[in-house]
This record gives sequence, C-alpha cells and structure tokens, in this order.
Amino acid sequence: MHVQGVLPILPTPFTDQGKIDEKSLRRLIDFELEVGVHGLSILGFMGEAHKLALEERRRVIATVVDQAGGRIPTWAGVRAFGAAGAIEQAREAQDLGVEAVFVAPIGVQNDSVLFEFYATVADALDIPVVIHDFPESFITTLSPELIATMAKEIAGVQYIKLEEQPVLVKLSTIRELAADHIGIFGGLGGEYFLEELQRGSNGIMTGFAFPEVLVGIYEAFRQGNEARAAAIFDHYVPLIRYEFQPKIGLAFRKFIYQRRGIIDSAYIRSPGRHLDERTQDELTALVRRVGLSVDQHGVQAVSA
Amino acid sequence: MHVQGVLPILPTPFTDQGKIDEKSLRRLIDFELEVGVHGLSILGFMGEAHKLALEERRRVIATVVDQAGGRIPTWAGVRAFGAAGAIEQAREAQDLGVEAVFVAPIGVQNDSVLFEFYATVADALDIPVVIHDFPESFITTLSPELIATMAKEIAGVQYIKLEEQPVLVKLSTIRELAADHIGIFGGLGGEYFLEELQRGSNGIMTGFAFPEVLVGIYEAFRQGNEARAAAIFDHYVPLIRYEFQPKIGLAFRKFIYQRRGIIDSAYIRSPGRHLDERTQDELTALVRRVGLSVDQHGVQAVSA
Amino acid sequence: MHVQGVLPILPTPFTDQGKIDEKSLRRLIDFELEVGVHGLSILGFMGEAHKLALEERRRVIATVVDQAGGRIPTWAGVRAFGAAGAIEQAREAQDLGVEAVFVAPIGVQNDSVLFEFYATVADALDIPVVIHDFPESFITTLSPELIATMAKEIAGVQYIKLEEQPVLVKLSTIRELAADHIGIFGGLGGEYFLEELQRGSNGIMTGFAFPEVLVGIYEAFRQGNEARAAAIFDHYVPLIRYEFQPKIGLAFRKFIYQRRGIIDSAYIRSPGRHLDERTQDELTALVRRVGLSVDQHGVQAVSA
Amino acid sequence: MHVQGVLPILPTPFTDQGKIDEKSLRRLIDFELEVGVHGLSILGFMGEAHKLALEERRRVIATVVDQAGGRIPTWAGVRAFGAAGAIEQAREAQDLGVEAVFVAPIGVQNDSVLFEFYATVADALDIPVVIHDFPESFITTLSPELIATMAKEIAGVQYIKLEEQPVLVKLSTIRELAADHIGIFGGLGGEYFLEELQRGSNGIMTGFAFPEVLVGIYEAFRQGNEARAAAIFDHYVPLIRYEFQPKIGLAFRKFIYQRRGIIDSAYIRSPGRHLDERTQDELTALVRRVGLSVDQHGVQAVSA
Repeated sequence: MHVQGVLPILPTPFTDQGKIDEKSLRRLIDFELEVGVHGLSILGFMGEAHKLALEERRRVIATVVDQAGGRIPTWAGVRAFGAAGAIEQAREAQDLGVEAVFVAPIGVQNDSVLFEFYATVADALDIPVVIHDFPESFITTLSPELIATMAKEIAGVQYIKLEEQPVLVKLSTIRELAADHIGIFGGLGGEYFLEELQRGSNGIMTGFAFPEVLVGIYEAFRQGNEARAAAIFDHYVPLIRYEFQPKIGLAFRKFIYQRRGIIDSAYIRSPGRHLDERTQDELTALVRRVGLSVDQHGVQAVSA
Repeated sequence: MHVQGVLPILPTPFTDQGKIDEKSLRRLIDFELEVGVHGLSILGFMGEAHKLALEERRRVIATVVDQAGGRIPTWAGVRAFGAAGAIEQAREAQDLGVEAVFVAPIGVQNDSVLFEFYATVADALDIPVVIHDFPESFITTLSPELIATMAKEIAGVQYIKLEEQPVLVKLSTIRELAADHIGIFGGLGGEYFLEELQRGSNGIMTGFAFPEVLVGIYEAFRQGNEARAAAIFDHYVPLIRYEFQPKIGLAFRKFIYQRRGIIDSAYIRSPGRHLDERTQDELTALVRRVGLSVDQHGVQAVSA
Repeated sequence: MHVQGVLPILPTPFTDQGKIDEKSLRRLIDFELEVGVHGLSILGFMGEAHKLALEERRRVIATVVDQAGGRIPTWAGVRAFGAAGAIEQAREAQDLGVEAVFVAPIGVQNDSVLFEFYATVADALDIPVVIHDFPESFITTLSPELIATMAKEIAGVQYIKLEEQPVLVKLSTIRELAADHIGIFGGLGGEYFLEELQRGSNGIMTGFAFPEVLVGIYEAFRQGNEARAAAIFDHYVPLIRYEFQPKIGLAFRKFIYQRRGIIDSAYIRSPGRHLDERTQDELTALVRRVGLSVDQHGVQAVSA
Repeated sequence: MHVQGVLPILPTPFTDQGKIDEKSLRRLIDFELEVGVHGLSILGFMGEAHKLALEERRRVIATVVDQAGGRIPTWAGVRAFGAAGAIEQAREAQDLGVEAVFVAPIGVQNDSVLFEFYATVADALDIPVVIHDFPESFITTLSPELIATMAKEIAGVQYIKLEEQPVLVKLSTIRELAADHIGIFGGLGGEYFLEELQRGSNGIMTGFAFPEVLVGIYEAFRQGNEARAAAIFDHYVPLIRYEFQPKIGLAFRKFIYQRRGIIDSAYIRSPGRHLDERTQDELTALVRRVGLSVDQHGVQAVSA
C-alpha cells in the first residue's frame, strides 16, 4: 500500500552565518505537523542538499526524524555521481530512521545504465526508493517505458517524484504502463496539482510555503469534493504560479517561512538568488491578494 | 516612440495535409483585429517557422501583411545559423512590408560575437530589430548588461522579447540599465503578464489562444485600473498556467483556435505533440471553468 | 555500388572583405583534382555553410560543379531547422548538379522523429542522402541501431559520415548491423583514418589541408599494402593530430591553403578563431618537421 | 616554487568482483616510482572517483600515500556538488597526507560564483588547490581571465590542470595573464604534451599507460634537447592519439596495465565501456607497431 498525501519538500534552515539552524528546523517540523501534512521530504534540491557536507546531512536527518517522532514518515533525498556514493548516503539515511529515499539519476543517458543504477541502489536497501525524475536539474531523461519497467522489475523501486514537463500526459502514461506498481507524486511547485490528482497521483512533494493550501486541495479531493478542490486551487494559483518561478523559488520560500515566524533566517548558501526589496514587496502584496498573510504566525485558514 | 500593447504570437495554420492554409490564416488575422490586438507577431517558434521552407515563409508574411492592410503592424521572426542567413530572411521580410523582425541569437556563448551578430543584422536593415531572448529554446544566454549595451549602441536594436526565467528581476534590471532605449515585451505564455506591466514592460508577445484576455488585462492596466487588471489576470490564470505547459502549448493553442472556428485544422508539422482525448477534455473543461468556451465563435467577453 | 575514396571537405574561400572568392574556389577544385581525390564535399561545417546566405550557397555549388566538370562527384552539406528547409536546400543542390547531400539531423533526440526526418528528406530527392553523424556539433545522437534501420528501410539513405566518438567501435557495429546497405565515411580530421579503413570504411570526408597524405594512405591501403598505409599514417599523424584541434581547425586549414598558394585569403567569417603569430609559427614548423612545406606550391610528395 | 614533471593520473584498480584491489594499487605505485614519475595524481575522472564511496576514497588515498612513502608527492581529485562537500573531501585528503587537491568546478556558469567557490575551498585548506579545467566532463567553462584572477588573488590556488580545447592558445594566454602565479599542467591524454612544454607548462597529469614515454619526453625537454623530445613524441604519437579516444580511454589503460602485469584486473565499474576482442587486438598491434609491448613486464625503454 503506497503512501499518499502531501509530503512537503522542506528547506534547510540556516543561521545568518550559514550554519545549520537546528532550532528553526524543529520549529518547521512542528509547523508541518500542525498543518497536517502526511510526510516530510528533506534534503531535496530545495533543501540545498547539494550545498551540505555529509556531516551536515546526517545532522539534518537525525533532527527531523527525532522531531517527527514517528508521527509521519520522513523521506530523504540522495544524489551522488555514482551508485557507490548513492548507496552510502541512502544507507546512512536508512540507519537514521528515514522511511524512503528519493534518488536522483546519474548523468548518463542510457536506459540499461540507469536501470542498473536504480537496481543496485534499491537492492542495497531495506526501504523503498523513489525515482526523482527532474531532467531540468539532473539533465538525464527517464522515459515512461523505463520507469514502468523499473517499477515492475525492481522490488525496491516503489515511487516516483515526477517533474518532467509536460507532466500530465507522462503521468497518465506511467499510470497506464505501470498500473499500481508505482506511487506517483507530483512536484513542480504544485502548478499541476489538481490535474495530477485527477489523473491518479498519490499526492505531492513540493516546497510551496503555504502547505495548508496543498493539504486543503488534497483533502477536498480525497473526500470526493472535486469542485471544492478546484475552487481552492484556482483561488491560490496566482500565488502558486508566482512562487514556482525557476531559480528563485527557494528565495521566495525561505522569505515566507521567515516572515511567518517559522524559521529565523532566510539565509541561502552560495550559489543562490536573494530577493531585492521590490520583489519582496511584490510577493508580499500577492500573498495578501489571495487572502493570506506573511505577517501572521500559525496555520492559516484556506478558502475556496 | 516604442510600440506598445498585445502583439500575439500567431500559429501558422495548415490544412490536414500539412500545407499552409491561407484562408485560415486570413481568418485568424481578421479575428485578431476584431479582438483589438495592437500588432501581429508571426513566424516565431509557436508559428512553426523552423518547419517552413523559405518559400512558405514568404507566403505567410505576404498573406498576413496583405490581410492586416496596414491597420496594425506585423512583426516577423528570424532565425538562422549565422548573420548572412539572418539578414537574408530579415530583408525579405522587410521588403514584404513587415515593420520589425524578432531575431534569435546564434548559438555561440560569447558576448562580443553576439554583439557583432546583432549589430551586423541591424545595420543591414531599415526596420527595427527585436532581440529574442529565450535561452530555453535557443540555448544562448544574454546578460542584462549585454542587452543594455546593444540597446544603447546599436541604433536598430530597439526591442526585446524577454523570456529568460526568472523573468521579472531581469526585466527590472534591463529597464534600469537601458532606461527607455529599449521596448520590452514579455512572453512565457503570459504567466507573468501582470507583474511585467507593473515593472515597466511595453506589452506582450505570446500565443495564448484567448487574446481577448490579454487585451483585457492590458487595457485595464493602461487605463490606470491596476486592481481590475489583477482581477482579470487572477480570474484566467488557471487557464494561462495550464496552456503554458512546455512542449505541448502549440497543440493546446491550435486545438482551441480550431474549436473556436478560427482555423480549419489543428495540424502540427513533425516534430510535434498531439492532444489525446483525455487532455482535450481536460482543457475544454478548464476553459469552461474560467467562464470561456471553445465552442462559441467570435470574440468572447472577459470578466474580472 | 557505393562511392569510395577521399572526398575532402572543402573550406569556402572568401576575399579579405569576406565575399565569396570564386577564383580561389576554382583554383582549390583544380588543386584537389590534381591531387587525385575521388570526390568533393562542400558546404559542411568546415565550409562555413552556416555562415552563408542561400544565394551564396547556390553560387558555391554552381561554381564547384562547373569547375569539376563531371570528372569527380560533388557532394553538398544540408542543414536546416526542419524537414521543409532541408528539402528546399537539398533539391536546389540536386538541381545544380550535386550527386549526393550530407544532411545534419534536426535537434530532436527521438528515434521516430529522426527516422521520419531522414525518410521525408530522402523521399523528396533523386540523389542519395548521407547521414551526417556528428553529435559534437549537432547535439543529436544517432544510435547504430537507428542508423542501420534507416539504411535498410529508406531507399535514399545510402551513406553516413560518421563522427561520433569513440568512432571505431561504432563503425564496426554499423557495418555489422547494416552490412553493405550503407557506405561509411570517416571524418574527425583523419585521426582514425587507418583504423577506419581496416574496419571497413569506404573512405574519408575531412578537411586536412594536405589531401595528398589522405590519398596516399588510401591508395596504399586499397592496393593491399597495409604496412605502407600505416607507415604513411604514422609519419604524418603528428600533423593530423595537431590540425584536428577542436574549434580552431578551420583556421589551420585556411592558413595552410593560403600559404600553399591555393586560396588568396585565410579570411574566416564571424564567429571564428584566428591564428596568432606564435601558433602560425608552431604550425609551420610542424609541417616542416613531417617533411612538408607551407611555402611550396603544387602537390607535394608523400613519404612513409 | 611550483611542482614540475609527470604526475600520472592513476586508475583505481578493482578486483574482478569490483572491490578495491589494494595489492594492485601498491604494485601500481611501485611501478610509477620505478618509471621515475615526479608525482602521483589519484581520484581523477580516470580514477573512477565518481564511482567510489567516501569510505573507498579514504582507503585509496591512505594506501597511495603509504606506498609512496613521501618519495614523491600525491595529489588527489575532489569533486562535489557544492563548496561544503568539496571542503569535506579536501580536508580529509589533506589529513591523510595528500600534498595538493585538484578540484572540479561546480556546475554554475557564473564567474563570481566560481571565484567564491574556489576561494572558499582554498581558504579552508593548508595545501594548494589545483583548478581542474575540463569543460567536456564538468560542463562549466573557466575563462583565462577568471583563472588568472583566481591565481593572483586566492593564495591557495596555485595550479591548473588545463584541458579545455583548443588548449594551446589558452595555455599561452593564462601564462601571459598570470605569469608565474600559476603552475600549469596539461592533460588530454598527452596529445599536445610537446607543444604545452614549449609554451611553458610545468608538466603533465594524464593517464597514458606507458608513463615511461611521458617521462622520456619530459626529461629530454628539460635537458634542453627539444629535438629529441620531439622525436620521442612523434615516435609514440600514433599510440597517444589512439589511447586518447573519448569515453573509452580508461578501458584502454586498464587493459594495458593489466597485460603489463601491473594490476590484476581490468574491471571497470558501471557505467563504463569494455574492449571487444577486435579492439584489444587493434590496440595490441598498435603498441607493437611503436616498439612497445603489452606482454613484457617492467619499465620499457623509450626510443626516438
């Protein structure tokens, strides 16, 4: 039985000096729990995993697993140049209590190499592997056929975080080819969340900084109220669209989480973009326009 | 004084046998005039210019210029592997009555080569050059500094169609560096149209298949009614976002234009994606959800 | 029966003002005939075809065909953004008397799109199509399986100019899969010419500026004297290797052809690299080291 | 005072089961010492560093440093997705006794980001940093100007392993801009070793599997006997050229080292290319043609 729901991609909070801020991280977990998300996704691209030392990875994982206290599952990202490195990271995550790893492909455009990579990694683990299909960041393209074959033939490959554009047709194709051998999570900032659910996704893993909106859409949909799910989606899509701007999305999210009082600093490690004042004001005004607030602490009510 | 407004990127209508459909093209021009757009942009990426023979290019240009009858300006896209080819295409367009050309950069990532390319092309023409800044399709990246330098130092370089993500900060940077030496048009399916206007764009060149929405936003904004512009934008953004999906946008647009009775066939030349039935239904339902219709002919009313 | 031998890729000679230099071009053809090459390859990447207007393409083709006077075949390069443009160029070349066209793939990494592209182009012509397999310049990768399928199933696809590295294993694989359905020409500056012949190539299409060396190797090999072919190859490989440096090879070749009195100017259209004095001296000394001369006019003797 | 000479890039020997083969590694070090190389470069691309777990990296470094016993310096490669990971790897290498690290750039094409990356890494170390400039594998391009600035302004940046094609002009430009602030090592399989020395390189870091040839060229050159250096180079360049074929070079080298009795297995971790029989025979015959042998153990004599 596959995990379902909203598993937000969490940023990694730093202090203003660029050190990992464990206190903010714990506060962030508490907030997500309060929102009612169904799991936690850490150490993804938005989590600046590529900018952390391995020692820091370990600390982030241990902190999140500890703070979540087994109430919801924690999934962790894995990215390496080859299988040995990926296994090393994934086993470490497994030992620290993570319940699945989402694994970026290596940069070799060859189906049999990619199959072997995922098989080798999955076979070395006791927890499920989530294929991270995001060619825009990882370059490698995974065809629906390859994905379905891996889902069927590699026992440990059980999920995909699907982010190749255009995503909707690919989602339906994979669902058709792999049936229920695979759990499919959307990403892409939530821009296609509604249609993904309608096409049979299990939920979403994305970093949108008002996760209550994602949970609102998800719950309405699961309760069979598609019209309400659509109404919520349409209400907030001006913000979802804005926040999903490539290359600058992390800055939006850290800004919002900081302003909402959840993390202490919006610090981003190099290389990263920072928000100039005009953009901060633009974002703040847009948040207000959709009826939310960057200044109000705590979980906010979602409307349709 | 720079041109302003909505200059839709037009698809090139084909018959079901893949021949240029002049009748549909003339009907499309009539429709755009009825909508009240401020100019016409032909032979862009969405116009499948790269799939046309030069003889076909000429025919498209001549037909559009003839049908527009001087009521609004026609701009044409130019893309070649080098300056000599670009000049040849651009001069031909100029001779046929086009009032500006939007020119893709050559694929060489070197500022002085790019400057020389645009200078050589612009100097060979009597009509203005629009830089087409779209790295996702053309690979080449143009920095704000290079763009501003070209705008100031090359007399013929007068506009930019700006589509490098994230687009908003780049727009403001170019506006700051180049002041009014350049007219800036947005693209990207209109996803950031509202913010682009607020940051000083001249208008938009994009292929959204309900151009009445773009005109509605633009007119409200130019009349100083920003709240109404935002309200229209927010109302239709669920559709704008959906239609802008990478690699499949042209299929959406030809489907809509055909269903609206404006072009006879949704035929796309190879390589191109086609809409399966589920996607057609999804799109049709979404159009209805925002209060528009693919079944109703003629210009449709826009609401906020 | 496939064409065999040395079909040098010719540079396009310009005047010092960047105009096509027809006189030099005719002198170059005369020189190649005197050398005893087996065909002429024009308008390739090294021929700066991407920097020519179509009007200039026509003039180059007409001049070469006229000067060759039917004594050896002329093949011309074709590169466009889509099939319609490629057909337009190829038909024009055919009408001007060219005996085959070597056609670059379009930039879409999809086997069925590529098959359709080559089938469409080949079916529109009466002369054979040579697949130009050069991913380093054209990005697109063509698998041995796709190449063999095209060779067998598309009547007009009869040759390949093979330049994907590492080239030797690919050559043997294609030869095995396609048997004699395809004529294979090497390129890559001649760096693997000897091994290519040993593995069953038909000859070479490359721009090395002492084509007498290529003819020497080829003739020795065809006469069954492999040891002599190897000895010639080894004797000149220090120069072959040097001349084949990426991005600067054209400058080497125009420099040598000019110094040898064959073309009047080493002018290269932008973008292009030029040789500083040190590099000119280095090249000149190396030519001397292998027993050739840039200062001596006429065909030079080749030794082993 | 910069290190000079031949610092071969060593492969990482595996057993036939793909485990690190410490015995072969020690034998390889002994062989290189016997050859008379001037240093050892481990954990580069050819050393399959990207396919090792960190635990394996440590073991390779410790073994090599131990076996070298301080007689010649050991340099180790570092490659990570960000500065924190690079520092972690580099410090570990430093602590294990390595005397310099050659560091791949992160994949961000932005001069100030790259400067900051190298400055951050260098400032965290007590040993010198070697910039690894190899865009073909790492994508990122480093301009001569940026390289010279880093050499002058970052104390720890003291060397470059230069492999951007065409390499010779770039080498001279860097030498001119950075004067003696930087030690320059060639790579690229030794294809331009002679000219690199003539243009002021400090030596070479490459994996050519007859390092005695590289040492022969180097010693002749340093003794002022350029003619002899050239004669040795020309004698072996047919093999140097062949071995340097992209993507398959490692297979050539492991094959030769195994046949020479230096390592026990030619095993390559996935993804990697293996030599078919025909290619093995081709290589073996070529080695013989230049007067060397894959069957003879021990250092072989070099002739001119």
